[in-house]
Amino acid sequence: MEHGYSDHKDAIQKRLRRIEGQVRGLQRMVDEDHYCIDVLTQISATTKALQAVAIELLEDHLGHCVTHAIEAGGPEARAKVREAAAAVERLVRS
Amino acid sequence: MEHGYSDHKDAIQKRLRRIEGQVRGLQRMVDEDHYCIDVLTQISATTKALQAVAIELLEDHLGHCVTHAIEAGGPEARAKVREAAAAVERLVRS
Amino acid sequence: MEHGYSDHKDAIQKRLRRIEGQVRGLQRMVDEDHYCIDVLTQISATTKALQAVAIELLEDHLGHCVTHAIEAGGPEARAKVREAAAAVERLVRS
Amino acid sequence: MEHGYSDHKDAIQKRLRRIEGQVRGLQRMVDEDHYCIDVLTQISATTKALQAVAIELLEDHLGHCVTHAIEAGGPEARAKVREAAAAVERLVRS
Repeated sequence: MEHGYSDHKDAIQKRLRRIEGQVRGLQRMVDEDHYCIDVLTQISATTKALQAVAIELLEDHLGHCVTHAIEAGGPEARAKVREAAAAVERLVRS
Repeated sequence: MEHGYSDHKDAIQKRLRRIEGQVRGLQRMVDEDHYCIDVLTQISATTKALQAVAIELLEDHLGHCVTHAIEAGGPEARAKVREAAAAVERLVRS
Repeated sequence: MEHGYSDHKDAIQKRLRRIEGQVRGLQRMVDEDHYCIDVLTQISATTKALQAVAIELLEDHLGHCVTHAIEAGGPEARAKVREAAAAVERLVRS
Repeated sequence: MEHGYSDHKDAIQKRLRRIEGQVRGLQRMVDEDHYCIDVLTQISATTKALQAVAIELLEDHLGHCVTHAIEAGGPEARAKVREAAAAVERLVRS
């Protein structure tokens, strides 16, 4: 199955592995009793990194799956647009 | 000039006027020395209402301007997708 | 009744009036058929301005109401801290 | 060194390990070509889980480090309040 991100899976995976490293870094900070505010700063950085991946995936999705649905026409196109907007809503709320 | 939201401008304007009322309500709360936490709760509600309008406009935009660019094909389609993703990024960051 | 923001109500009110102006600017943009993405950019700016007021009020609240409760001691201090954290949660979610 | 979260490090660590699992789950989803929107939904859930840990740490911090600074009095209390508000600002922006 082809997806918007299929062409650069490696880049996405590299970013997700770096985020996994950031979460392990958070565990180490807590383990070593780092200052609360420093832990919070790292959480903000990790959240930002996750959201950057989300924006990348969303752009891929619009340029690929949503584009294909629009080119094919019909009610599917409208459903894909609605689905993408709902995904953005979840991102904004999180 | 036609836009994604042209078909339901009245509904969008009604929501924006309600948000304007919420902001005036905030001024009144501050004026009448309401409790800080209650003012913060109202700010959160106002922010949510603004973001709901943004999601609505984004869905209109994808279903209209972006859809037209994709149907027309060419480099413009890709540019519209990128522009929409950048707008989502600003929403997520705000 | 004294609140954290009592000392600089004027500054807070000035910012809220500017935000009210931004919301009226949004209505004008929609009325004059501005491009969807430009409206979204202005919504992001308005949301940011609202959240900046929230951060200001929160700092005032911590430095005043929460500080007084802690100085007074007892279970009220713990309740104020919990209440402030819940307000931050609503801000982060909005 | 004692911190706000020292009393329930285990609970915090458990949550961070679960978040690490969520990030590894994201890598698996991308590896197995899951649908973009489903990956986005999981990113939103992971972001929410991270922010819930942040709110928890913030409440601990206010109830511990900030409370101690306020009880000790002097300019340090004001500095701690400002630092906490700046941390909240980074959370809200991320």
